[in-house]
Amino acid sequence: MISRILSAELAEHAGQRVTIAGWVHRRRQLKSVSFLVVRDRAGLAQAVTDSAAVLPPEESVVAVTGTVAVNPQAPSGHELVSPSIEVLAEPGTAPPFDLYRPVVGAGLPTVLDHAPVALRHPLLRAPLEIAAAGVAGFRETLDRLGFTEIHTPKIVGSATESGANVFAIDYFGRPAYLAQSPQFYKQAMVGVFERVYEVGPVFRAEPHDTVRHLAQYTSLDAELGFVRDHRDVMAVLREVVAGMLESVRRRAPRALSLLGVRVPEVPAEIPSVHFTEAQRLTSSSEPDLSPAQERWLSEWAEREHGSEFLFVTGYPMSKRPFYTHPDPARPGYSNGFDLLFRGLELVTGGQRLHRYDDYVRALAAQGEGTGPYEGYLQAFRYGMPPHGGFALGLERWTARLTGAANVRQATAFPRDLHRLSP
Amino acid sequence: MISRILSAELAEHAGQRVTIAGWVHRRRQLKSVSFLVVRDRAGLAQAVTDSAAVLPPEESVVAVTGTVAVNPQAPSGHELVSPSIEVLAEPGTAPPFDLYRPVVGAGLPTVLDHAPVALRHPLLRAPLEIAAAGVAGFRETLDRLGFTEIHTPKIVGSATESGANVFAIDYFGRPAYLAQSPQFYKQAMVGVFERVYEVGPVFRAEPHDTVRHLAQYTSLDAELGFVRDHRDVMAVLREVVAGMLESVRRRAPRALSLLGVRVPEVPAEIPSVHFTEAQRLTSSSEPDLSPAQERWLSEWAEREHGSEFLFVTGYPMSKRPFYTHPDPARPGYSNGFDLLFRGLELVTGGQRLHRYDDYVRALAAQGEGTGPYEGYLQAFRYGMPPHGGFALGLERWTARLTGAANVRQATAFPRDLHRLSP
Repeated sequence: MISRILSAELAEHAGQRVTIAGWVHRRRQLKSVSFLVVRDRAGLAQAVTDSAAVLPPEESVVAVTGTVAVNPQAPSGHELVSPSIEVLAEPGTAPPFDLYRPVVGAGLPTVLDHAPVALRHPLLRAPLEIAAAGVAGFRETLDRLGFTEIHTPKIVGSATESGANVFAIDYFGRPAYLAQSPQFYKQAMVGVFERVYEVGPVFRAEPHDTVRHLAQYTSLDAELGFVRDHRDVMAVLREVVAGMLESVRRRAPRALSLLGVRVPEVPAEIPSVHFTEAQRLTSSSEPDLSPAQERWLSEWAEREHGSEFLFVTGYPMSKRPFYTHPDPARPGYSNGFDLLFRGLELVTGGQRLHRYDDYVRALAAQGEGTGPYEGYLQAFRYGMPPHGGFALGLERWTARLTGAANVRQATAFPRDLHRLSP
Repeated sequence: MISRILSAELAEHAGQRVTIAGWVHRRRQLKSVSFLVVRDRAGLAQAVTDSAAVLPPEESVVAVTGTVAVNPQAPSGHELVSPSIEVLAEPGTAPPFDLYRPVVGAGLPTVLDHAPVALRHPLLRAPLEIAAAGVAGFRETLDRLGFTEIHTPKIVGSATESGANVFAIDYFGRPAYLAQSPQFYKQAMVGVFERVYEVGPVFRAEPHDTVRHLAQYTSLDAELGFVRDHRDVMAVLREVVAGMLESVRRRAPRALSLLGVRVPEVPAEIPSVHFTEAQRLTSSSEPDLSPAQERWLSEWAEREHGSEFLFVTGYPMSKRPFYTHPDPARPGYSNGFDLLFRGLELVTGGQRLHRYDDYVRALAAQGEGTGPYEGYLQAFRYGMPPHGGFALGLERWTARLTGAANVRQATAFPRDLHRLSP
């Protein structure tokens, strides 16, 4: 490895001659003195040289050897003096916008078209650091609770969530589809490991161009057996969300402060309203909640319960997928829930049917045979415990947490109706 | 949650009345006494009852409440006596083969056709436990080394590794492909985070039916900048392999002992031979190594160096992909490597080109323009450090470690030329 220290380690080496390496974030040639700001994975460091020095242009890859001196004005309170600069690679062209400016001086289309270089801007890479930290917290929490990680097929013989919005593939001359979720597989694996999770891509041929939808996103899925009902699933989800946020605080403090993110507190018990109560509160009689109602309910939870999180339970069965378990006490309503966070649905989950005959009936009720689902239903022929689970979209979570207006700001290389590259 | 303890916790509750829950692994009704063996995620537990009791059939989901008594013959040295049995779900049909027998009494096609239930057999689920533990070790090691996790597109506008063996998709009416690797994206993200990894599915439309290939597999990818050459990448890979094996020892001891897996030692420095030396040792003049030669070299490394791992470096440039960095001292040979483990190529990696002009030249040399690669090459226009990385196929690693003859035994729901379900 190139022998060097990281920018964040300068202070530990005061007075010593050290090498840092990274990209030229900015060069500034003043009358009497010149500055070279170097960006590496840990942050920024500054080298000071005399004004006669010829400094390499921005985004040059350099190794800078110098003596660490105290300077309260420098990024880490320290800087390199008497530097010698080795250029490891030269850029062929200037970035489409200045990466060193504190604010991103380009619109989203330019950023997305030039993602490989645009994401080097500290403000644009920060959401991806937060996403990575969140996923680590997701896994950490579930590992602690005895879950096993699984990897399931993304190429399937029939649509999973519904017949619409699937991408078709030519599979060795046969028709196949990209999986819209690992739903059926994670349920089957509850029969093997009781508690499973998967972090992986899911695919939706979303024909609308919105700020909330992507054609591919990263789904954080969990499923667990031996629940009494959906409330046990909600309790695990509460742990997961708290674990994700704790991980972000611990692993991505720099990204949080750069973006000015206020990390929410997760109440020991997240407040919960039944769908019928949510209808009453919002004076609605529709069988689903509109985005405006979700926002209103979030504000209500904040006001009444001091919580930025709110569970809405008991959505009408007619609005939930066929594998949803009904509420035994009120069969028209489900044991399904949504978790709202800052006005937006963040997670969908619930208890699932676990008896084969119930699946046959549920499919028949929507006019479907078991044919396309036989592979899926197999698991239920052989004894499955009461179980449930949830799915959380990583990009939506990251966007909501960081205040990004568009989910495309929370993923490196988004895929949508119009975008297939880079 | 259903209030219960796990089978593995029985000993801690000797003399107490407790509930366990799981599947009926086996019921045995003898003349004077009956046994019910319950399987949960932690293992097996036995309940003893009088012979008059009617026991639910295998794969019933049950909660069994009883008093913990010592019995050296029982699975954990303890068993439940005076049990009361609650049936939570009944199977509709018997499994296609007995899950309680110590040996799997079915061939691979039957196992794969019935994966949702077959994987409940302790011997069949064990490789998946080992895989999960290995991935955890992969991430743990790279997290410790300052890597950032990324998630990249699986739908791409042009083939990544080569034009052959790609699955075509209808992407909103436009042609697109399933990514054969995250190669281009992980390289671009080195420009953002310096050190990145991804665990995700990759897709190969492999037209041959072999024991080594899958149409979808889980690729463990890493890429890092500021390397001197491929040897720095090999050093990181050595840490990763050691971390994966350490994690398996720590997280999956039961699976290891069930399968009788001998976990290899990873030498502090894995022995390494240059390709030309490998040719000389195997008396070959071919520009690539055959499977037989790989086996021979592995045996040689074990004999000469006491290592089950062997690096082969410097493969001819003609046999490596266009993004491979040549050996500056011997330009016909590459800074690429393979890692052999127990006779099989387990990991491929190397140093990559990092200058835009070198990419243009490398593509021209194989008669290609930059057109389909422009999105990829973008990163190199803006200053990229010397870098390299590697990719390890999870299923192949798991199969090799567990001694599985077929890579399909190391994944839950394999996809291949003939198989699209379950």
